[in-house]
Amino acid sequence: MEANGSSNTAGKPIQCKAAIVRIPGEPLVIEDVIVAPPKRCEVRIKIICTALCHTDLTFWKVKDPPAIFPIILGHEAVGIVESVGEGVHEVVEGDIVIPIFLADCGDCTDCLSEKSNLCTKFPSRPSPWMKREETSRFTDINGETLYHFLNVSSFSEYTVVDIAHLTKIDPAIPPNRACLLSCGVSTGVGAAWKTAKVEAGTTVAIFGLGVIGLAVAEGARLCGAKRIIGIDVNQDKFEIGKKFGVTDFVNSGNCGDKTVSQVIIEMTGGGADYCFECVGMKSIVHEAYASCRKGWGKVVVLGVDQPGAMLTFSSFEVLHSGKSIMGSFFGGLKPKSDIRILEKRYMDKELTLDEFVTHEVDFKDINKAFDLMLEGKSLRCVIWMNK
Amino acid sequence: MEANGSSNTAGKPIQCKAAIVRIPGEPLVIEDVIVAPPKRCEVRIKIICTALCHTDLTFWKVKDPPAIFPIILGHEAVGIVESVGEGVHEVVEGDIVIPIFLADCGDCTDCLSEKSNLCTKFPSRPSPWMKREETSRFTDINGETLYHFLNVSSFSEYTVVDIAHLTKIDPAIPPNRACLLSCGVSTGVGAAWKTAKVEAGTTVAIFGLGVIGLAVAEGARLCGAKRIIGIDVNQDKFEIGKKFGVTDFVNSGNCGDKTVSQVIIEMTGGGADYCFECVGMKSIVHEAYASCRKGWGKVVVLGVDQPGAMLTFSSFEVLHSGKSIMGSFFGGLKPKSDIRILEKRYMDKELTLDEFVTHEVDFKDINKAFDLMLEGKSLRCVIWMNK
Repeated sequence: MEANGSSNTAGKPIQCKAAIVRIPGEPLVIEDVIVAPPKRCEVRIKIICTALCHTDLTFWKVKDPPAIFPIILGHEAVGIVESVGEGVHEVVEGDIVIPIFLADCGDCTDCLSEKSNLCTKFPSRPSPWMKREETSRFTDINGETLYHFLNVSSFSEYTVVDIAHLTKIDPAIPPNRACLLSCGVSTGVGAAWKTAKVEAGTTVAIFGLGVIGLAVAEGARLCGAKRIIGIDVNQDKFEIGKKFGVTDFVNSGNCGDKTVSQVIIEMTGGGADYCFECVGMKSIVHEAYASCRKGWGKVVVLGVDQPGAMLTFSSFEVLHSGKSIMGSFFGGLKPKSDIRILEKRYMDKELTLDEFVTHEVDFKDINKAFDLMLEGKSLRCVIWMNK
Repeated sequence: MEANGSSNTAGKPIQCKAAIVRIPGEPLVIEDVIVAPPKRCEVRIKIICTALCHTDLTFWKVKDPPAIFPIILGHEAVGIVESVGEGVHEVVEGDIVIPIFLADCGDCTDCLSEKSNLCTKFPSRPSPWMKREETSRFTDINGETLYHFLNVSSFSEYTVVDIAHLTKIDPAIPPNRACLLSCGVSTGVGAAWKTAKVEAGTTVAIFGLGVIGLAVAEGARLCGAKRIIGIDVNQDKFEIGKKFGVTDFVNSGNCGDKTVSQVIIEMTGGGADYCFECVGMKSIVHEAYASCRKGWGKVVVLGVDQPGAMLTFSSFEVLHSGKSIMGSFFGGLKPKSDIRILEKRYMDKELTLDEFVTHEVDFKDINKAFDLMLEGKSLRCVIWMNK
């Protein structure tokens, strides 16, 4: 057993540090763990850095299934390939890779289609296992199984990821920017670019200016939207939003006797061409629908409400309004091909990533990243594994 | 006052026959009426033939507003221009025209856009008046006002229609085919062609094989759909549907212990690429949504349920399914430009119209057309004004 990964660690377990959640909502504890070698179609990665996303926070707090403990959270990351399992030809030791929670098997109907990013072979579900064998590659030093999270588990110096969840990237991209492409930022940018297909010269309304909403603004800006209206209860979000292309702001807590949709309709002379819901409240989906331009308006749902929540639309209005409603999961992006395009646009200084990183901490201070997010102080806090 | 329209009737009232509904649900009565000359931007037309659409039937039976009486129903028609009002340059006396209930003013944002068919200047509403002046051009021989219907009122030998509601067509097209392009058939064909943009080689599921559903099949066939699944409670609809491209049939009253969506998903190996709801029941919209292929499925709503009916979709599923939901009003067609394209495709023997005409009657027998539709015996019954 080796303390550090290198070519001579291939095929052997690696002992390293990981941040573990044993009790929901309690601070993560950094412990020694054993990371088994990758099996068929798996890759073991040395994580360079990882970022904290709201989904990590959700599964850290939630007590009921599908939450499960003890678990190694983390799914926005970048790493270097330490070794590959049998049947892996796409990457080799030393490659820089981004793990992505969504699979891209490359040979099912969906992965072969330009129109879908919902792999049929490996449907998205929060399984605690490596997907092909339904087993874990993590144990603690007492031999107890530790669970995987979202096919990534990046809060560990080493992790094992299925090749269907890995995208090789240009090593020139700084790791504290590359890791953002794993989830939240890509989701927002993709929602504007791939799901809504925002056209140049149009008007976009974004409900909720968290990281996803700001990334939608960034995507809309890249698509050439003329006017990008941010809607949030926090007035400070306007200044932050301007860095990502937000041109106008509506404080949804301060609309007087008007609804937000009435304000948007007045501002735009009939409604926005595209409305994005980035909060996860059905009432906001309905406001977004009402804020959309008749004739061609698109409502894109990025947030998800409580389990069982239903979105309701008037049958009459659906028929007569000319509006359409769609969801955007991982921004409609295909993990292997589209992430490379975003990476190139960052390297070409088109896509803004730098401004999303508001904080950086060492791995030992990972709980600080949780505190910053809980306090609403961070957009993305990057956690360096071994800086 | 003249008995027949000709160039020397211009500017004068015309006395002619019209079928009037004075009491909802009672047989239409053919009476003498006075049709005033067209005012500014209006055109007086001699109707050649007209067809009966379900919307006529609905407004014949309904007792409450927006229904209003006495009224001249009818809105699927073709006619010849008798005279034009001031400011009309688009058509001249003798032109063959189709009246369309939906406006195309030609200069509002929507009419100038390729993406909308919802004219802002003249929003669609069942007004009983000529729209620019909110007055009627019809009176009975006692001087009582008779109301207009859907901007057309074609159950009259002469009618007055706003130029925004008229499309000039090729006089070579037979009138008993041309009149079908006014509403129902165009709506269905357009829903496949313009709203859903059905791609070649795909699978389409159509819920309800009335005229609209059959026209969706026809549109899907023209778009190159490989498989067109009709769903209806009436097994006879399969044979009828084959004339319009239906390749498979599901009897929704005979699915055993399976739901229709389960049957469709099994038949298609995952769901249809496009699902069209042509019945007007929210429960069927939900089945259509469930029948749609994840990743890219489109649900197109053509029917409208009772006033106040709400369509509900799971927030989780909207986000995660990759499906989209849209309505199709008049098939997303732009009345002036797209109808000309359909007309040409009929003349080029691509578009099937003949098979929709199951019956033809003389104007004096107009109530027969109502009976045939009420008994479910007709697809379209063409009513000839003066054969």
